[in-house]
Amino acid sequence: MLASSLVAQTKRARDYGIPFDGKTGRYNAITDVKGVTVGHVTLISGEGSLVKDKGPIRTGVTAILPRGKEFAPCYANWYTLNGNGDMTGTHWITESGFLETPVLITNTGNVGTVRDAAWRWMNDRKYYTPFFKDYWYAYPVVAETYDGLFNDINGQHVKSEHVYRALDSAKSGTIEEGGVGGGTGMMCYGFKGGIGTSSRIIDSNLGGYTIGVLVQANHGRRGQLNIAGVPVGKELMDTLRPKFEPATGSIFKAPQNETGSIIIILATDAPLLPDQLKRLAQRIPLGLTRTGGIGGNGSGDIFLTFSTANKNAFSTDKEQQVTTMPNEFMNALFTATIQATEEAIINALFAGKTLTGINGNTMYGLPIDAVLKIMKKYNRFKI
Amino acid sequence: MLASSLVAQTKRARDYGIPFDGKTGRYNAITDVKGVTVGHVTLISGEGSLVKDKGPIRTGVTAILPRGKEFAPCYANWYTLNGNGDMTGTHWITESGFLETPVLITNTGNVGTVRDAAWRWMNDRKYYTPFFKDYWYAYPVVAETYDGLFNDINGQHVKSEHVYRALDSAKSGTIEEGGVGGGTGMMCYGFKGGIGTSSRIIDSNLGGYTIGVLVQANHGRRGQLNIAGVPVGKELMDTLRPKFEPATGSIFKAPQNETGSIIIILATDAPLLPDQLKRLAQRIPLGLTRTGGIGGNGSGDIFLTFSTANKNAFSTDKEQQVTTMPNEFMNALFTATIQATEEAIINALFAGKTLTGINGNTMYGLPIDAVLKIMKKYNRFKI
Amino acid sequence: MLASSLVAQTKRARDYGIPFDGKTGRYNAITDVKGVTVGHVTLISGEGSLVKDKGPIRTGVTAILPRGKEFAPCYANWYTLNGNGDMTGTHWITESGFLETPVLITNTGNVGTVRDAAWRWMNDRKYYTPFFKDYWYAYPVVAETYDGLFNDINGQHVKSEHVYRALDSAKSGTIEEGGVGGGTGMMCYGFKGGIGTSSRIIDSNLGGYTIGVLVQANHGRRGQLNIAGVPVGKELMDTLRPKFEPATGSIFKAPQNETGSIIIILATDAPLLPDQLKRLAQRIPLGLTRTGGIGGNGSGDIFLTFSTANKNAFSTDKEQQVTTMPNEFMNALFTATIQATEEAIINALFAGKTLTGINGNTMYGLPIDAVLKIMKKYNRFKI
Amino acid sequence: MLASSLVAQTKRARDYGIPFDGKTGRYNAITDVKGVTVGHVTLISGEGSLVKDKGPIRTGVTAILPRGKEFAPCYANWYTLNGNGDMTGTHWITESGFLETPVLITNTGNVGTVRDAAWRWMNDRKYYTPFFKDYWYAYPVVAETYDGLFNDINGQHVKSEHVYRALDSAKSGTIEEGGVGGGTGMMCYGFKGGIGTSSRIIDSNLGGYTIGVLVQANHGRRGQLNIAGVPVGKELMDTLRPKFEPATGSIFKAPQNETGSIIIILATDAPLLPDQLKRLAQRIPLGLTRTGGIGGNGSGDIFLTFSTANKNAFSTDKEQQVTTMPNEFMNALFTATIQATEEAIINALFAGKTLTGINGNTMYGLPIDAVLKIMKKYNRFKI
Repeated sequence: MLASSLVAQTKRARDYGIPFDGKTGRYNAITDVKGVTVGHVTLISGEGSLVKDKGPIRTGVTAILPRGKEFAPCYANWYTLNGNGDMTGTHWITESGFLETPVLITNTGNVGTVRDAAWRWMNDRKYYTPFFKDYWYAYPVVAETYDGLFNDINGQHVKSEHVYRALDSAKSGTIEEGGVGGGTGMMCYGFKGGIGTSSRIIDSNLGGYTIGVLVQANHGRRGQLNIAGVPVGKELMDTLRPKFEPATGSIFKAPQNETGSIIIILATDAPLLPDQLKRLAQRIPLGLTRTGGIGGNGSGDIFLTFSTANKNAFSTDKEQQVTTMPNEFMNALFTATIQATEEAIINALFAGKTLTGINGNTMYGLPIDAVLKIMKKYNRFKI
Repeated sequence: MLASSLVAQTKRARDYGIPFDGKTGRYNAITDVKGVTVGHVTLISGEGSLVKDKGPIRTGVTAILPRGKEFAPCYANWYTLNGNGDMTGTHWITESGFLETPVLITNTGNVGTVRDAAWRWMNDRKYYTPFFKDYWYAYPVVAETYDGLFNDINGQHVKSEHVYRALDSAKSGTIEEGGVGGGTGMMCYGFKGGIGTSSRIIDSNLGGYTIGVLVQANHGRRGQLNIAGVPVGKELMDTLRPKFEPATGSIFKAPQNETGSIIIILATDAPLLPDQLKRLAQRIPLGLTRTGGIGGNGSGDIFLTFSTANKNAFSTDKEQQVTTMPNEFMNALFTATIQATEEAIINALFAGKTLTGINGNTMYGLPIDAVLKIMKKYNRFKI
Repeated sequence: MLASSLVAQTKRARDYGIPFDGKTGRYNAITDVKGVTVGHVTLISGEGSLVKDKGPIRTGVTAILPRGKEFAPCYANWYTLNGNGDMTGTHWITESGFLETPVLITNTGNVGTVRDAAWRWMNDRKYYTPFFKDYWYAYPVVAETYDGLFNDINGQHVKSEHVYRALDSAKSGTIEEGGVGGGTGMMCYGFKGGIGTSSRIIDSNLGGYTIGVLVQANHGRRGQLNIAGVPVGKELMDTLRPKFEPATGSIFKAPQNETGSIIIILATDAPLLPDQLKRLAQRIPLGLTRTGGIGGNGSGDIFLTFSTANKNAFSTDKEQQVTTMPNEFMNALFTATIQATEEAIINALFAGKTLTGINGNTMYGLPIDAVLKIMKKYNRFKI
Repeated sequence: MLASSLVAQTKRARDYGIPFDGKTGRYNAITDVKGVTVGHVTLISGEGSLVKDKGPIRTGVTAILPRGKEFAPCYANWYTLNGNGDMTGTHWITESGFLETPVLITNTGNVGTVRDAAWRWMNDRKYYTPFFKDYWYAYPVVAETYDGLFNDINGQHVKSEHVYRALDSAKSGTIEEGGVGGGTGMMCYGFKGGIGTSSRIIDSNLGGYTIGVLVQANHGRRGQLNIAGVPVGKELMDTLRPKFEPATGSIFKAPQNETGSIIIILATDAPLLPDQLKRLAQRIPLGLTRTGGIGGNGSGDIFLTFSTANKNAFSTDKEQQVTTMPNEFMNALFTATIQATEEAIINALFAGKTLTGINGNTMYGLPIDAVLKIMKKYNRFKI
């Protein structure tokens, strides 16, 4: 089982025969949307007992730049299925319709450090050129999921230099998945989770647009997991259960049956207006739930969507021409959103490798052979 | 095939062995939430070519009374997955947190008639006693889906007396499903749709609450249909396709690949506050999409949730005690919402009988034997 | 005093020297936005005691057609300050970004009749040509305020033919204000209210756009009324108090200190996208409150905004070019929205003539001479 | 003029005879709501030319603790009039209905530092006792306005220790106003702005509740300023204009006619549910605009409301009793919200003292004598 999860990085879920609908882009990644770049910084050090401010450290930060180093704000919007989490910068997205900054994903305790480092990076790198020179303000978009079961989260180990490195190193093409960047210490459906990505290409007679999705998956209970409609989680209820000390000190009488969160970033080159991007964001939960998620109370399920079309939309002139697409053509985008979201999450699982963190807490990589056996049992296998 | 669909009214999806999760209430219906009553008025008359204002008529109206004839406003909220539809009265629900009127569901062309008839009925029946005597205003909640493929919708055949009858005849207990009431002329995933209902009972150690769902299902394309994770629609792509004249006169170049809508009403006796009922409403799409729905652009997917707890909440005193439940206990309600929504939609399909309407347009009842065969093929069959 | 209120129809607030900021359009009316037409049908009959379904009748309906008889959906959005009221059709505006129907304003008990009549009118008049021929559905936008203190509201006297007449007779140019159309039986700050309108022209170096506002004003308590910052209402607390039987039968212990509502429709030719039109809608309360309104609990303060620019936006093609304006230029539109809203409300008051309705209930027209005296006392007088 | 502004700290706007409506609490401050404490840390150092990372420094941080050091989450909600700003932590407030952390206000470049410091402080101080011991996560609420015209904002001079000090030193009773804490470098209507506060006490027959407001005012153009309905700003257009180098490097063609923002925090002891607290938040703009604000495009006008009633609402039990108040009684709270907001802003102005910051940029304290003269001219003077 370990063997199969070790190769997960190169062989992805659909390569194993998981039957996903729809046509992917070249990389089956958010970077299939032209211009989008992604950078990870992964922080792993120390072993053994948790010593606050020392470690062990199992965390990181992932940066997504809508147009790489180029500043040309994108139409954007967002939606939360369950807001037990944070994403900074959303108020201005709602108001203006634009995403003006890179997007960063990290752990819950480091949102602030990452946010202020992004502010500083934008100034240092003259990111706003040529719109502004010496003067600007912005509201960096930073989201998080909680890795405190495996990482010394209260130590706040992501520092300004890690943010700079993630932003500076972001690139197009293949994206590393699983326990990397912000996804380093994340668990999904009781297996190792983290970063996953996928894409879809719309039929050319409907515009030929691309939808790209990147998730930082840290959500779900084992029994909820579905893969392509198959109740895989139920079949694996007693297989490779994660080992960790239960959270101590809570006096809640409710069962702690949902931990973690999922942040989902969707990019598209379809010429959607801000209100139409809200519609895409509202379809993301439909893809999420097809893998089993319910938007649990403890989960921060926050979704951002942006369009790289209309590079000229953020204009200095009194009026500007932009391209729109009619609502009547959006169904294909809705379907692609659902499909790419579903596959990105499953990709995160297939890329997950067993990880041990603080206090020996351990989560296991998805046992791919076992999964494939279950898929066969339910006659849902492509190859 | 027809045979099996004829008995659908008494034998429901789970009776055939469709494996739904969770424990249902006595009636597996919205009426399992104590106090909720439902009334249908079904209008079927005429055959042959459409003659506007004459017929053929295939429509109706369904009434849901949160506490039967008793006036005691319920905490409520709502959410739309896709707002290509209407539900009147939602502004005051948002503002006040209360549902103060019955809820009615009909066809798109009759929302107004039904709304003003409900206003009149509330006055005639002294519905507001003892809060008010001669004076009151309210904003009746009326929703709709489009039956114009089978019904002379522009004839607006639902009249005030039908609304009175639906309201006066509403009762608890078993609910008729399929092509009745507002669901008379409705189509779902290319089969006969209409009214469906289901319920869930939460574990007693989590409160023992009931969730009841009623749908008027008129949404989805054939290929989207999933039953318990099995791609039934794809397997039935060429089986019993509905026959109807395509809409004429549209000059849109977009494929008309999504018609119809789904209205979903959820009742619970869990002591939820208005903002918590919004959370339930946001989980309804998760159940919907597990049957295949994507919130298509042409679809009016509008969802109302209310709680029958806290009968005293709408108070005339300066202050009032009400019961709440912590967010930490809501996961079980989220899961129940998703499960009951999924089953209610499948129930609507299993209850659907072949219907011919205007111009000989015909939709077929779900071929249950064929469906069961598919469920077996995918090893998803309980009995 | 009566004398001055009799001439109010031709001489408007600013003609008397009330110091409003900003530059108005030719008509100082919503019809200054090219293409917008308005039609009123006023129903006044009977006197004496209320006999349900007989009268007296003091009501009506006002129609606003964004582009007259021409069908070319407008980008639109809406906001509610206090949702104790109804406006149908808003779900699809939110979802699609478009207003696809005329807008009608009437009394609370007739929303449904007006809505279904508008549906029928759109079909009868082939309003959707050339987009559709025989087939269409839409969600007519119908709003209301409550005239039950003066009108037999439960008699629901607005009929289908009145709606047709209001729609068919709508015209550009001067708009009648005060107790006409939907505003017939409405009261504002304890004086006769009803329909009011105003407009603003933005400086040409900021685009030269027009903002037009129409209100149906039925809100506010006497002591709240401010005119151009002057506490006119406090000064007139004991002057010409309206006479009416208090609502009977309520057992609420709260003071009934806020009745009525205000519906506000804003048109502009500025090329705003749907999310930007939301921003305009959110500024309408700022104009409203400058006249004293607080969005009282009993008030239905619902605001619709639309843009007549981008006539081609509702397109049948895969992609479409539209014109936008940067957020950076919107301050002038915000200011104009606030100013035109404030003046439209004061215009409704200045146009109000004393009206007696059911049971001899009477509200008085604003005593203009007294108001002007107060404006002088506070040194806020232009002439 | 300087003389009068020097005493502003002790003598406040209403002491000078500005006619505000309504009855204030003992301190006329947010601290009149029992349990609320406030702490300021003010950072002023250096003079002369801006040298990034060195200074001059004119900034700070203000902490508001809903129940002082005690952890008992408050029902809460929020609204934005114009979202050109940030407030972290709002997603969980929307979802849960609770405010679980202190609230901090600082400059735009330091939101992150303050947020992560608050996270650490909550852990260090065992803020969550007795609900949790070793384990917790939260989403600290941190808001900001922009002081970059006077402060080396890109130097990010607010550090973790300042946040600790603001939180640790927070106290009830009198609150310092004007250029202190987060308000140190803020400008309002072209005068020195910053922190202001006010309160209202509701009539005892309506519950006797308290509303307390605290603002960090950094918004508005000179000509917009109204005080008690009097156009003070227009009268002072050419008086004590602020001196600063215009922002350089922007290539926007729009006039930079709106800078700054206003953050408003409202506390009440009225037993409001989360959805009712949204209603209060939506009335805050009505108070803001009475001082002249329009929610300008460059402004981050974000408003948070919370209730200290129902200390037991955040419960560990399955069910919990809480106290509510009917919507019918809320008008008095709406009025109090508007009044306290208006007065808090004017208080910030009256407390403002002339400040010189980076590059010799200077803003002047409100010339109180001149203001009083204008109030007399318009006959709006109480003493």
